[in-house]
Amino acid sequence: MAAWGKRLAGVRGVLLDISGVLYDGGEDGGAPIRGSVEAVARLKQSRLKVRFCTNESQKSRQELVGLLRRQGFDISEGEVTAPAPATSLILKERGLRPHLLVHDGVRSEFGQIDTSNPNCVVIADAGEGFSYQNMNKAFRVLMELEKPVLISLGKGRYYKETSGLMLDVGAYMKALEYACGIEAEVVGKPSPEYFQSALKEMGVEAHEQAIMIGDDIVGDVGGAQRCGMRALQVRTGKFSLLLSAVARH
Amino acid sequence: MAAWGKRLAGVRGVLLDISGVLYDGGEDGGAPIRGSVEAVARLKQSRLKVRFCTNESQKSRQELVGLLRRQGFDISEGEVTAPAPATSLILKERGLRPHLLVHDGVRSEFGQIDTSNPNCVVIADAGEGFSYQNMNKAFRVLMELEKPVLISLGKGRYYKETSGLMLDVGAYMKALEYACGIEAEVVGKPSPEYFQSALKEMGVEAHEQAIMIGDDIVGDVGGAQRCGMRALQVRTGKFSLLLSAVARH
Repeated sequence: MAAWGKRLAGVRGVLLDISGVLYDGGEDGGAPIRGSVEAVARLKQSRLKVRFCTNESQKSRQELVGLLRRQGFDISEGEVTAPAPATSLILKERGLRPHLLVHDGVRSEFGQIDTSNPNCVVIADAGEGFSYQNMNKAFRVLMELEKPVLISLGKGRYYKETSGLMLDVGAYMKALEYACGIEAEVVGKPSPEYFQSALKEMGVEAHEQAIMIGDDIVGDVGGAQRCGMRALQVRTGKFSLLLSAVARH
Repeated sequence: MAAWGKRLAGVRGVLLDISGVLYDGGEDGGAPIRGSVEAVARLKQSRLKVRFCTNESQKSRQELVGLLRRQGFDISEGEVTAPAPATSLILKERGLRPHLLVHDGVRSEFGQIDTSNPNCVVIADAGEGFSYQNMNKAFRVLMELEKPVLISLGKGRYYKETSGLMLDVGAYMKALEYACGIEAEVVGKPSPEYFQSALKEMGVEAHEQAIMIGDDIVGDVGGAQRCGMRALQVRTGKFSLLLSAVARH
C-alpha cells in the first residue's frame, strides 16, 4: 500500500459522502453498498476522525441517520453535516423568513423558523414537489422582493436512484436564477463554507490533515480541493476497498 | 411626427409580437389591449406589409388565430410565424423524432411527426405540464442519447397573465441544459433564423426595410436588432398610440 501511504500521509480526518458511497437511495429506503457497513466500522476503529458530509435534503438528519442505522451503519446525528440544519442556522443568524420549496421529509428541520411574510426562498431537492405551481409560487415570491435572496441546498445536477437518474435541486436552482436574473447562495457541497463547517466540527485543518471521499467529481472532489483538502472519487462499489485501505493506513 | 418619420424612413415591413402587444393572455382566453384591434386594422390598410411573429407555444396557430379573430383582430394563419410549425419543419428536415414536453394545446402541430424511439427532446411552454415527472422523463431521454439534442420553443424567462407572472419555457430549458451539460437550440425569438424566416415570408430585407414591435427587450428588441432590423419596445397599452403613428407614416 505504498501508494496509499503517500496519499494519506498526515491525514487526521476523513469526510465521507453518504449517498453513492455508503448506500444507494431508492423509494424503498435504498440499500447499503456492499462492504460499506464494515468499512465504516473499521474506519471508526482507526486513529482517524470521521465525519459524514452529505447534500441529502429530502430527509431530516434524524430520518437519514435512522435509515442508515437500520442498514447497520455506526452513525449518529452529531456526526452528520447536512444542508437543512446548516441553512436553518443561517436563516436565524440573518433574520430571514423563508418561503420553503422543500420535500415534506425535511420540513421538520425548519420547525423553529418563522415563515410568515417571506423575505427569501429556500429550495431543496423537493422531488415531486417541483410542480409548475410550486415553482411559479417560489418565482413570484422572489420577483416581489426588492433584493431577491434564493438559498439552494446543494446544486447537484442529478443523482441515481434504484429506478434510474433523478433531476436534482441544481436544475431547479438554475431555472429560478435564470427567470429572476439572480444568483443563488448554495448551502452544501461544493460550497467552501460548508466543508469548513464540517472540518471545524472535527477539529481538523483542511490543508494536509483532511481527505474527502465522495462519488461526485464536482460536489465532492472539486469542492474539497478548492478548500485545500485532498479528495478521492469512488465509484459505487469501489468504496469498501478504498476505505479498507484508508483504515489500515 | 418628425421623430417617427426619421425612425421609420424606408420601412416596408412591420413584424408584430402578439402577446403583450395585441392582447394579454389569461385562463379565460385573455383580452385585447385597448386600441390594438383598430391599430392593426389601420396598419393593414397602410402601404406597409405586416406579419405577426410570436413565441406562443401553448396553442396551435389555428387556435391562436381563432382566439384573436373572436377578439376582433384582422389576422389569418398564413400571416403568423410561430415556433411550433417552424420546429415541425426542422424536425422533418433533419429526420428528428422528438420526445415532446409541450402543452396539449400545441400537440396537433406535431401530428405528422414520428415520435417513436425519440432521438431528441422538444420543449415548449408546457405550463402545468412541467411536472417533476415530465421533466425527469425528458432529462432521462436526453441522457440516454449519444449526442443529446434539445430544441426549445423560445427561451423566455416569464410572461404576464391576468393572474400574475408565469414562468416561461426558458427557465425549464436552463434546468435541462444544466442537468445534462448541453446547450439547447432555440426556435423562436430572439433566434436570428426565426426572424429571417418571418422576413422571408414578407419578402422584406432586415436591413433598413423592417421593424419589429414587441414588449420584450430581449426576445423582441435585442433579437431583431442583432438581425440588423430596427425595433421598438412597447409597454402594454402604449401599443395603439405607436401603431397609429406607424400606420400614419
